Amino acid sequence: MTSKIADFSKLCVHTQTTRPWGVESCVKNYSAAGIHGITIWRNVLENQNLTTVKALLDDYGMKVISLCRGGFFPSVEVARRESAIDDNLFAIEQAAAIGAPLIVLVCGADGRQSLEKSREQIAEGINRILPAARSAGVKLAIEPLHPMYAGDRSAINTLKQANDMAELINSDWVGVAVDVYHLWWDDTLKSEIARCGSLNRLFAFHVCDWNLPTIDFLNDRGLMGDGCINIPQIRGWVEDAGFAGFNEVEIFSEKYWATDQKEYLEKIKLAYVSRT
Amino acid sequence: MTSKIADFSKLCVHTQTTRPWGVESCVKNYSAAGIHGITIWRNVLENQNLTTVKALLDDYGMKVISLCRGGFFPSVEVARRESAIDDNLFAIEQAAAIGAPLIVLVCGADGRQSLEKSREQIAEGINRILPAARSAGVKLAIEPLHPMYAGDRSAINTLKQANDMAELINSDWVGVAVDVYHLWWDDTLKSEIARCGSLNRLFAFHVCDWNLPTIDFLNDRGLMGDGCINIPQIRGWVEDAGFAGFNEVEIFSEKYWATDQKEYLEKIKLAYVSRT
Repeated sequence: MTSKIADFSKLCVHTQTTRPWGVESCVKNYSAAGIHGITIWRNVLENQNLTTVKALLDDYGMKVISLCRGGFFPSVEVARRESAIDDNLFAIEQAAAIGAPLIVLVCGADGRQSLEKSREQIAEGINRILPAARSAGVKLAIEPLHPMYAGDRSAINTLKQANDMAELINSDWVGVAVDVYHLWWDDTLKSEIARCGSLNRLFAFHVCDWNLPTIDFLNDRGLMGDGCINIPQIRGWVEDAGFAGFNEVEIFSEKYWATDQKEYLEKIKLAYVSRT
Repeated sequence: MTSKIADFSKLCVHTQTTRPWGVESCVKNYSAAGIHGITIWRNVLENQNLTTVKALLDDYGMKVISLCRGGFFPSVEVARRESAIDDNLFAIEQAAAIGAPLIVLVCGADGRQSLEKSREQIAEGINRILPAARSAGVKLAIEPLHPMYAGDRSAINTLKQANDMAELINSDWVGVAVDVYHLWWDDTLKSEIARCGSLNRLFAFHVCDWNLPTIDFLNDRGLMGDGCINIPQIRGWVEDAGFAGFNEVEIFSEKYWATDQKEYLEKIKLAYVSRT
């Protein structure tokens, strides 16, 4: 039995959820709405002084849950794999600078090679950046992505694969992120959530909904309750597995981005307490 | 090591692959191109005299591999589940009339209920139509669909689930269809193909490719070689599992439908011998 959500103390919103806003608007509006968890997407940090951003976050009482996103390790081209390492090392610096304890990894895939090869390169990539992450005090979460992204965005498409990789790497600094959008269809989800929970590797929990029909591969996610995912059930599994962190609202939606973002934030809050 | 395809003796084309053509154009053009396997979609049978269609198929030396498609069993509404049964019984009559030995089942899903509930209703539906299928001499193939269709088109999303259901139903008349488009990403695919093969339940094999990027959820499939699926590898697994049937080209593509269909048929033949 999933407990009811009673308040906003564990609500986190991803800056990408309110994409029309820059980081300052996100911070001020989330805080004004009583939302104090924020996951920062790297696009909003471009051309920003990170010390200033950190001060802004502190001034408004914001807790940074994670930085999105690192990853995209695989490529048939060595030069691209190397530049991915550089980019991930830079992400670790950014995370440390703004006080993000975690980086979410969208691991990547290269359709010109097998999924197995891409997975090998993902493990290599994570092992390469791990010392820097540990030194910076920043954890890494492997996020399995929906199989519809297997060709170009992630060769890690089930929580079992993410758990297997985290076990292979075997570091306190590497765990997994569970996003209902990517994983709701999988009949092994409950047991795999229990598995990573028991090993203290469940680092993040993302919510949104699967629209019926879905009309775009990237930017047609639903607000909780819009679609067909039993979000309370999955949240229950996550909490039963020992997760006590924030519930992160990560919605990419052309439809909602076209609306008033302050009103949208209120819709998110309503959906959060009533349908999450 | 996958054997090379040397000729067109096991090539089958789905009528939906050349959607602009009606059944007569499909039959005449496939036959003229040296393609003698055909899978008939039910839309091309609308307003047709099935005796005439059967005579046409025979006259042009066409072998019907299967009828597409039955299924769509689940619904929260009893009336819709009943009308699905009626529709599937009608499909069995159609299959028998045109000499199709197999109906492919796109099993269905209803996002208003759990995937488990939809799966129960799928098993119930198949059991309901099984006596009629057996009497008519028509087999039924459970086709797992890609997880991106879990909300509205099929609650069977992996070959493991299809195999589990076929084992549960446990009839010589019920097996599975393997379509590379739906299953290529799954790291249990090889073992699950071996599993259904060993039980003589691998009834059909469908090929096309996964485009990068894919821009439409339904009608942006690629011709073999256009995308990222290792089709020869999967065909090798299927043949190693004992499958000796036709390789069915099932491509839904607005792009290819907009081209000259005779030229497209030649492209299909080339892709079939060189990239399948």
